Amino acid sequence: MDNFSYQSPTRYVFGRAAEEQTGKLAAAMGCHKALIVSGGGSARRSGLLGRIEESLRAAGIATLELTGIRPNPTDDRVYEGISLCRAEGVDGIIAVGGGSVIDTAKAIAGGVPYDGDFWDFWAGKAVMEKALPVGVVLTIPAAGSEGSGNSVITKLDGMHKISLRTDYALRPKFAVMNPELTFTLPPEQTAAGIADMMAHIMERYFSPTQEVEVTDRVAEGVLRTIVEEAPKVMARPDDYEARANIMWCGTLAHNGICGCGRREDWASHGLEHVLSALYGVTHGAGLAVVFPAWMTLASETKPAKVAQFGRRVFGIEEEDDSKAAIAAVAALRSFFGSLGLPLTLGELGIKDPDFAAMTAMFHRDKGNPFGAYISLTPKETEAVYRLMV
Amino acid sequence: MDNFSYQSPTRYVFGRAAEEQTGKLAAAMGCHKALIVSGGGSARRSGLLGRIEESLRAAGIATLELTGIRPNPTDDRVYEGISLCRAEGVDGIIAVGGGSVIDTAKAIAGGVPYDGDFWDFWAGKAVMEKALPVGVVLTIPAAGSEGSGNSVITKLDGMHKISLRTDYALRPKFAVMNPELTFTLPPEQTAAGIADMMAHIMERYFSPTQEVEVTDRVAEGVLRTIVEEAPKVMARPDDYEARANIMWCGTLAHNGICGCGRREDWASHGLEHVLSALYGVTHGAGLAVVFPAWMTLASETKPAKVAQFGRRVFGIEEEDDSKAAIAAVAALRSFFGSLGLPLTLGELGIKDPDFAAMTAMFHRDKGNPFGAYISLTPKETEAVYRLMV
Repeated sequence: MDNFSYQSPTRYVFGRAAEEQTGKLAAAMGCHKALIVSGGGSARRSGLLGRIEESLRAAGIATLELTGIRPNPTDDRVYEGISLCRAEGVDGIIAVGGGSVIDTAKAIAGGVPYDGDFWDFWAGKAVMEKALPVGVVLTIPAAGSEGSGNSVITKLDGMHKISLRTDYALRPKFAVMNPELTFTLPPEQTAAGIADMMAHIMERYFSPTQEVEVTDRVAEGVLRTIVEEAPKVMARPDDYEARANIMWCGTLAHNGICGCGRREDWASHGLEHVLSALYGVTHGAGLAVVFPAWMTLASETKPAKVAQFGRRVFGIEEEDDSKAAIAAVAALRSFFGSLGLPLTLGELGIKDPDFAAMTAMFHRDKGNPFGAYISLTPKETEAVYRLMV
Repeated sequence: MDNFSYQSPTRYVFGRAAEEQTGKLAAAMGCHKALIVSGGGSARRSGLLGRIEESLRAAGIATLELTGIRPNPTDDRVYEGISLCRAEGVDGIIAVGGGSVIDTAKAIAGGVPYDGDFWDFWAGKAVMEKALPVGVVLTIPAAGSEGSGNSVITKLDGMHKISLRTDYALRPKFAVMNPELTFTLPPEQTAAGIADMMAHIMERYFSPTQEVEVTDRVAEGVLRTIVEEAPKVMARPDDYEARANIMWCGTLAHNGICGCGRREDWASHGLEHVLSALYGVTHGAGLAVVFPAWMTLASETKPAKVAQFGRRVFGIEEEDDSKAAIAAVAALRSFFGSLGLPLTLGELGIKDPDFAAMTAMFHRDKGNPFGAYISLTPKETEAVYRLMV
């Protein structure tokens, strides 16, 4: 087990009608004037946004709005939000949505008290020490951003999609999580979210660190729950218990508990960020294509952990590691397929993939080599991309 | 799944030499003058206490000492600590030890800023809103107090052993956790700690709440890790990896993550607190006697979850729930026995148990009936105690 430091201070308020507590929770984080960040309009149409505004007003908090945040969120909206907060004296941000909305809210929160360009943090030129407090009303279980210190933003100039990980500064103060709010998610969004949360666990699980049994077992337990509950939410979108399990899994997948004591990999996320940047695909759908391909390469070079994954998550009984690893990849791909997720670049809508450009962008953003469980140089990177056809 | 609110804000600094960061962490919690609380003297003799004092001094923090805290800690030392802190202007508490030391430190921390008698909180007469900040240097993985908001104190007058659970106020600000510090624990203390942490998970696991699959799987994962790693630490006390796994399991067992979304039971802890109060037994050793007895009654009335426990934690393959539950109890008892733990009241040194007095004290402290998975009235309570002979 590696030395580690871990702190997950977010207050999770989970269950039916949890969103009614938003105002009280925002007041407790010292907020008097809030910027509410939201997405494409469904939160307004469903009445959720109105209820949040009412809850905030009842707690004596004035509100402004930044709406229309889109998937793969971009730096232009962050700059807009920072200007708005400074002009209006906003002292807290409320994100109502999923990962893209939350990540935008976090980036604004980090940018407001910083004198320079907020992108400095994403570019590695500055270390974020402080941020406005952020609260979350989660509507899409997927990114896990409600419990993480991370924020993924794409810089339009050059299409750099970069994930910033802060130890503490960007952890939301609270996350309101009502599974009922996820009943109306379109099936493809539910499925993409499931792929995303599984990927967050697997990026941590496939680690060169040995003897991290407790963290392995916790990760496997969350993965196994997802595999059991996912078919239920696909079949019955209003199955409260299944939705609740999936929602909490999405948080545990990414709040760090599945990474304690080990190096993490994160190559698959980097491989997918390139697909999102170049071809505009949905992150979770892209991961459903990327992860089995990456895992195929891992099976060939370091099958032991892939075999353990297959045995403990998918119940594969094969004793030979190499064979069990191959079976594990097949089980994962089959599982993603059962959720209606794409399994190839073609199914993602990428008809004419430019493998050289993808490989070059991956190493431009991540360095060379990259990856902890297996190390990707351009040769392996291109090979993994070619496994996605 | 039940609605829940969960926040575990403690910063865990885990690994070799972690204790060197104590001063820096204490300064970050705003401490200028610290009371160091410790136990029977081993921390002084080993040099650990000296290193902690040096680390605090290097961070500009003055120190006072309250030492000699004993197992099943009592209110008299809490009053002593509160007086000392008030007289000396202490603004932070550092606990160096295990559960008894940490719980005493917490009780002092809660008592200092309170105008009334600190016992008011334990007696349910007042709700704790604030406390001095507490930091922990953990030397005994067992009680999980390093990550919990709980504190168990015995009031000498009447031998009331009461556990206070605060949502937030008593959560330590940081916990320094170096597995090497546990190499020298006597085997009986290592084993008692293992029984204690398993009990913390099982108290949460045996719940009437249905459909909490993710929390079940996490709990089972931690339990299974303990079952795998415990024989290693008993055989090789200086096995760093096994000690590290056990240490982190002890924290996850009790920081609340294994209870999210469900009602918890806690009858077995109450049954054991009576044994500790009346007969002075070690808490963890008492739990090794109490839990299989309680689980025997549970097997008879509600076998399904006991069977699931047996299948997923001990690999029992029996398909009939009642038979699997009986096998699960046997497996748990056999496991405790393999660690050298006592399995009967006699082996605990209680030669002439007063079942009526034990039953009366249990319901005096816990009410009647008590328990969530199964409900104990005096009839069942006495029956469980009689199963311990």
